[in-house]
Amino acid sequence: MDTITATGPHERLAAALAVEMEAVNDLIRQRMASEHAPRIPEVTAHLVEAGGKRLRPMLTLAAARLCGYEGDHHIRLAATVEFIHTATLLHDDVVDESARRRGRPTANLLWDNKSSVLVGDYLFSRSFQLMVETGSLRVLDILANASATIAEGEVLQMTAAQDLRTGEETYLKVVRGKTAALFAAATQVGGVIAGAPDDQVRALHDYGDALGIAFQIADDLLDYQGDSRATGKNVGDDFRERKLTLPVIKAVARATAEEHAFWQRTIEKGRQEAGDLDHALSLMRKYGTLDATRDDANAWAEKARHALTALPESDLRQMLSDLAAYVVARLN
Amino acid sequence: MDTITATGPHERLAAALAVEMEAVNDLIRQRMASEHAPRIPEVTAHLVEAGGKRLRPMLTLAAARLCGYEGDHHIRLAATVEFIHTATLLHDDVVDESARRRGRPTANLLWDNKSSVLVGDYLFSRSFQLMVETGSLRVLDILANASATIAEGEVLQMTAAQDLRTGEETYLKVVRGKTAALFAAATQVGGVIAGAPDDQVRALHDYGDALGIAFQIADDLLDYQGDSRATGKNVGDDFRERKLTLPVIKAVARATAEEHAFWQRTIEKGRQEAGDLDHALSLMRKYGTLDATRDDANAWAEKARHALTALPESDLRQMLSDLAAYVVARLN
Repeated sequence: MDTITATGPHERLAAALAVEMEAVNDLIRQRMASEHAPRIPEVTAHLVEAGGKRLRPMLTLAAARLCGYEGDHHIRLAATVEFIHTATLLHDDVVDESARRRGRPTANLLWDNKSSVLVGDYLFSRSFQLMVETGSLRVLDILANASATIAEGEVLQMTAAQDLRTGEETYLKVVRGKTAALFAAATQVGGVIAGAPDDQVRALHDYGDALGIAFQIADDLLDYQGDSRATGKNVGDDFRERKLTLPVIKAVARATAEEHAFWQRTIEKGRQEAGDLDHALSLMRKYGTLDATRDDANAWAEKARHALTALPESDLRQMLSDLAAYVVARLN
Repeated sequence: MDTITATGPHERLAAALAVEMEAVNDLIRQRMASEHAPRIPEVTAHLVEAGGKRLRPMLTLAAARLCGYEGDHHIRLAATVEFIHTATLLHDDVVDESARRRGRPTANLLWDNKSSVLVGDYLFSRSFQLMVETGSLRVLDILANASATIAEGEVLQMTAAQDLRTGEETYLKVVRGKTAALFAAATQVGGVIAGAPDDQVRALHDYGDALGIAFQIADDLLDYQGDSRATGKNVGDDFRERKLTLPVIKAVARATAEEHAFWQRTIEKGRQEAGDLDHALSLMRKYGTLDATRDDANAWAEKARHALTALPESDLRQMLSDLAAYVVARLN
């Protein structure tokens, strides 16, 4: 999720939206304060100031502007979306027992799990207050549904991640929960707050959904074939952490009995030995699952770009289209 | 919180609201289901079916009925309030590393911390969907603010609980966060959904707020002087867990240098020895802080009963009044 480099369409978006993003950042700083509990801004600042790419709030701002919005509720919604994202990161790090995030020690390591759980809850409630301030029940409905999809996807991931019966359909649900639901809500509420017609709102939702899925599939693929200097990850981290991602799911689906036993031992039981990662990669190559996964990512990126055709042509639309292309360009 | 016995006004409320509570329970069962993630209803059922008193949803139903409401949104709001409560219990148990809740092993012990965090998030998002369905922005505003107060209170409790500088003002903020904010929101939204006039809505808020505070102060007092057969708790649990509650805060405020060192050793540093609980109790008796705490609880209960005078007389109003009296009757 954080592997966009310094020359991509992300930077052009950031430049085009610089004034509004400054307002979003001001609002985030203002609302993460707590008069009573100084631990809250400490923990939040650690994460918020750590240099995340602010991709989700930019999507909201871009969507609203693209639909001709001239008010200021999109600033609140952009901050809302970033708060929801930050809250899920805090809870994810507790769930994954992560030690590092965005190149820094995680909050659960620096403070404790308690702080991560409770400050995450606080940010959720702050995001909730912000969206209520827009006075739009339709926005609230979209974000409530996105929140439920996110939470359900997280639980599903926890229970399905090491179960070899997990198929592509479940994988897609998990990906929608962990990534695409918030992307889709971020773009959709931008259109809704702008009062865009239904077909444009639907197009913005579809763009965010497909972009998020392409993003996550690309991330999962790069884990097996990325350049670790570019991605900041080591090849095979997901394998070592026994995560069932698309390249493995496709290989399990075609596995012989012997191969199935290999996946059971390494993923389900977690009894990994030297040479296992190489063998896993050879099975993925044998069945062409890395290529097939790249094809899937490309198809979702293409779907995202296609969705944009329902929206008026503009520089911003081009940047969103380029962003979708960029997500998968890293793979090709 | 769960020490109401079988003959109190709680049971009369439950009888008066039986039909609507059945609808609330049906809705809870329906909405805690998850098509994709069976772990969710497993964890939730463990807690929801464990026989909590459902006090908060009853407060919402009673408030709506008291204000003459004839629609069905109060059912949704009652379920909302119970979901928020259940979600905070799940997260609390992770934060407190609790092993038992309502006489049963906690979810974090039966499953794991991950499940408690994520299923709690899921229930929050479900509560959010339910309240959006009422279409009332005012209700959403009240519940968003209550959520923020709850989360802030929890963080404050975590950082202030073992700090001897914590005074009565901070204690009250923590109590509002952990108990009174949701009580107050539960009663207030009942009035709002009924379209009650502002003075009645304010009275319902004040009733819930004062009831919640009386409730929590009573609980904290019973920890030091309750009958463990009646309360289900052991005398001094809070002392052993180094929780700064009102009887201790009042004793610390009057402590001599030597006594202050005693509180520092036992509460701040947690180096407790045999006989420390007896000495703590003797210090509380010396300064009359148990009596003073009971006076505070009585005053809040009286405030709750007084708030009700702004509402139309009825059997339900009498039951709410009796409930406030009952909360402190246990102390006298």
